[in-house]
Amino acid sequence: MTGPRYTPLVASLPASVPFVGPETQERARNAPFAARLGANESVFGPSPAAIAAMGRAAGDVWMYGDPENHDLRAALAAHHGVGPENVAVGEGIDGLLGCLVRLLVAPGDAVVTSDGAYPTFNFHVAGHGGALHKVPYDGDHEDPAALAAKAAEVGAKLVYFANPDNPMGSWHGADAVRRLVETMPEGTLLVLDEAYVELAPEGTAPEIDAADPRVIRMRTFSKAHGMAGLRVGYAIAAPGLIAAFDKVRNHFGVGRIAQAGALAALMDRTWLGVVRGKVATARDGICRIARENGLVPLPSATNFVTIDCGGDGALARAVVAGLIARGVFVRMPFVPPHDRCIRVSAGTEADLAALAEALPEALAEAREAVAG
Amino acid sequence: MTGPRYTPLVASLPASVPFVGPETQERARNAPFAARLGANESVFGPSPAAIAAMGRAAGDVWMYGDPENHDLRAALAAHHGVGPENVAVGEGIDGLLGCLVRLLVAPGDAVVTSDGAYPTFNFHVAGHGGALHKVPYDGDHEDPAALAAKAAEVGAKLVYFANPDNPMGSWHGADAVRRLVETMPEGTLLVLDEAYVELAPEGTAPEIDAADPRVIRMRTFSKAHGMAGLRVGYAIAAPGLIAAFDKVRNHFGVGRIAQAGALAALMDRTWLGVVRGKVATARDGICRIARENGLVPLPSATNFVTIDCGGDGALARAVVAGLIARGVFVRMPFVPPHDRCIRVSAGTEADLAALAEALPEALAEAREAVAG
Repeated sequence: MTGPRYTPLVASLPASVPFVGPETQERARNAPFAARLGANESVFGPSPAAIAAMGRAAGDVWMYGDPENHDLRAALAAHHGVGPENVAVGEGIDGLLGCLVRLLVAPGDAVVTSDGAYPTFNFHVAGHGGALHKVPYDGDHEDPAALAAKAAEVGAKLVYFANPDNPMGSWHGADAVRRLVETMPEGTLLVLDEAYVELAPEGTAPEIDAADPRVIRMRTFSKAHGMAGLRVGYAIAAPGLIAAFDKVRNHFGVGRIAQAGALAALMDRTWLGVVRGKVATARDGICRIARENGLVPLPSATNFVTIDCGGDGALARAVVAGLIARGVFVRMPFVPPHDRCIRVSAGTEADLAALAEALPEALAEAREAVAG
Repeated sequence: MTGPRYTPLVASLPASVPFVGPETQERARNAPFAARLGANESVFGPSPAAIAAMGRAAGDVWMYGDPENHDLRAALAAHHGVGPENVAVGEGIDGLLGCLVRLLVAPGDAVVTSDGAYPTFNFHVAGHGGALHKVPYDGDHEDPAALAAKAAEVGAKLVYFANPDNPMGSWHGADAVRRLVETMPEGTLLVLDEAYVELAPEGTAPEIDAADPRVIRMRTFSKAHGMAGLRVGYAIAAPGLIAAFDKVRNHFGVGRIAQAGALAALMDRTWLGVVRGKVATARDGICRIARENGLVPLPSATNFVTIDCGGDGALARAVVAGLIARGVFVRMPFVPPHDRCIRVSAGTEADLAALAEALPEALAEAREAVAG
């Protein structure tokens, strides 16, 4: 008996996954992490009001969630000053990116991103057979001009741009983003991933006409709102594109607890302010620890700090391994020259104390290993 | 400025959705339903242990869920006597069907189902450009022999078969299912959708070698486990097919609360027994109400009863409209001759009282409308 007959595209895909989760590493090392600072989660947790709303919704979870996500979309629309017809809700930005790529990208279609940017976007592009063109960062920043130029050169259907950026934590001001939208070639859609924008300085998020067919912006409840494990993201775009998600999405995919939790979190602006303050304090703490170890923390508009370890990828990989061995879960950028860095999420005081304790040893060990 | 350039396949798809949710109907009628009996949800709710587990997980939801779903898969594997490598977890059976169709179906590829069976499967096949071939039911039962014959005739990559069936509530015994697996043509995969099987008589679920490459079975926490709004389903199949899901799935799609809730529900066999009893009682109640109104309830191995209204689709549609107008949410099969029926989910005593009160009027009104 033969197995299933996969499509030629699927047969060509690797079964690799974009990320290895910390739980996998904990199982491998047979011990939990003391500090979980690798996935840019918000250790400060969700809004207490959201926790209460999720608890209440748990008893109602026998009911499917509203497949139109009506109340959440209405609240998001009001919050952003757009119409509900401008808002699509999905299973995290990951889920929305998957739908978006499927809507636009057939095998061979050109897509542009930055070399070293969000790997899950690349996963989706590969999964639909797209031809992915990567442009280098400009130093530690994504390069809007290079993205636009490459899009024009290859006739891209889709350009990915994160602002603020992950994994470097860098950002562009609203004017630069608006300029990028203006320079999109005819027929190219810009995906503006603003997963971290609530944590960025005022003036990072541009005003964009929600009817503008050149851009779709993505937001999430995973970062500042502290609900990565809930899986709720949303997209803001022109009504035609938003409606197109109905052609391919998992209509009941954002369930009852998820909708209730996200709605409550959106309403709790006080908690968001508290988290912003805690994240800023934690960033300062991480920068201090980095400097105390002779390392250079990069400026960040996110809930993580990317730290230049002053060597190459081999050194940073050894530092990451040393921290993980000491119970501190961190990650690092994938590609040179950014892989000279490690990436540390904002943590509690206890988390940062664990980092401060582990880093000198991990660093010494890494330097020795690389030198040896 | 032009809009996004959709793929030709996507451009050809309708933006319609498989189901209109009850919330949409409630908004349209500007009043909540008194009885929610249309979506085959479990009004008896999830296990109290699962509610508690979800409440606890709400505070931890700042963490992404384990993308390997390790603990849940291990528990499911132990429960079914298979290996974790035989189990894939996804965002409901809907999400798993979407992935599965994507793995196998390229534009033009043949797929077989029954005419009137689960529309969301058809949505996925259409969404990937598959050529869907439908065979008639054999009376009120799906017809295994016809499915196998059609699969051989068209060279189907995939055959969909639900046991028990939705929307008719009918079922085949384990022997018939095993025979269907045995008669799959070389290179055809059988999707055995067992969403309702925990509510079926003993002997409905066949023993199937999990290494058998001819079949993938799908289960869910949405029905007997009462967690439709949580979005957790799972598939059992040969390791190669399970691994292939990693090529296309949303790896973090089943979040932290979902994994915790499903695990607790799986462990609570007592609650499952309680629900089985309540569902059986409710089915009896629905049958009694149907008979009191001169209608014929069909035998059911699910948490709903399909009721033959004794006329055609126009009559049944009018009955459904009359019940909805009276605050009783029900649905009905889509295609003739099954659209002579309405479909009523197992409800509480209060739900059934609402049905008993509304049905005579709805029926009289419907008969008058059809006669007029």
